[in-house]
Amino acid sequence: MSGHSMKLVTIVCEALARESVTGLLMEVHAHGYTLGPVEGTGAKGARTGEIPELGNVKIEVIVPPPVAEQLLQRLQRDFFPHYAVIAYEIDVRVMRSEKF
Amino acid sequence: MSGHSMKLVTIVCEALARESVTGLLMEVHAHGYTLGPVEGTGAKGARTGEIPELGNVKIEVIVPPPVAEQLLQRLQRDFFPHYAVIAYEIDVRVMRSEKF
Amino acid sequence: MSGHSMKLVTIVCEALARESVTGLLMEVHAHGYTLGPVEGTGAKGARTGEIPELGNVKIEVIVPPPVAEQLLQRLQRDFFPHYAVIAYEIDVRVMRSEKF
Repeated sequence: MSGHSMKLVTIVCEALARESVTGLLMEVHAHGYTLGPVEGTGAKGARTGEIPELGNVKIEVIVPPPVAEQLLQRLQRDFFPHYAVIAYEIDVRVMRSEKF
Repeated sequence: MSGHSMKLVTIVCEALARESVTGLLMEVHAHGYTLGPVEGTGAKGARTGEIPELGNVKIEVIVPPPVAEQLLQRLQRDFFPHYAVIAYEIDVRVMRSEKF
Repeated sequence: MSGHSMKLVTIVCEALARESVTGLLMEVHAHGYTLGPVEGTGAKGARTGEIPELGNVKIEVIVPPPVAEQLLQRLQRDFFPHYAVIAYEIDVRVMRSEKF
């Protein structure tokens, strides 16, 4: 059982950006994401006042490396100028059922 | 302080499978998991209707590499035919307290 | 687009330790964490009774490698003797907006 070498892309963004980000995921064919609320402080917020910002969401999606690259480039070009977003990719070995 | 090279195994499955999966974790001696609800779309679901499926759970557990291998094989053999499941492993460096 | 090679440090601890841990994050300049509740069983608890412990929190923060090292050393020295804590680091490639 070897599994597949993929990228786990995690996007943490303000809740305001949620629909736009999931729309982008569909657009680049990054299906099968999970999504949940998180509390947190942005790096900038923390520096100025240490005030927790509520209403962030964390979106995770597993994609082949070229899709991860495309997704991160689109986030950088279209979302970073407008929203508070952090995105990162991690190497993962994946197995999934036919049903997923 | 070197820590231990371990595997973080993440399992996202329909809530229906929760008890069976945690039972499997105990069986392979994969103790110390965390578990929480996530929203999400399965890859298949997203392709047909983009309808979010509620009621998924994400289970994470840190184990030595051979236990990760055993866990992923058991998931593939016993769960993938019956449930919507995705599982992936990530290399991690771990430190833990005696109390955990 | 190359991104930055960073460390994702994840800390799972009893809810009791939450304020102390986020205080430590500020102290080592590990800004921009996310935080959320998780269910789980500690490795020790699971061995004795398989009883889920509620009230754990998972804290994630992305930092440069030297900050990760400092954070993990401080956790080990100051928190491991007193709290149920597990901490691990993962290699990540990060992109973030100016606003985050």
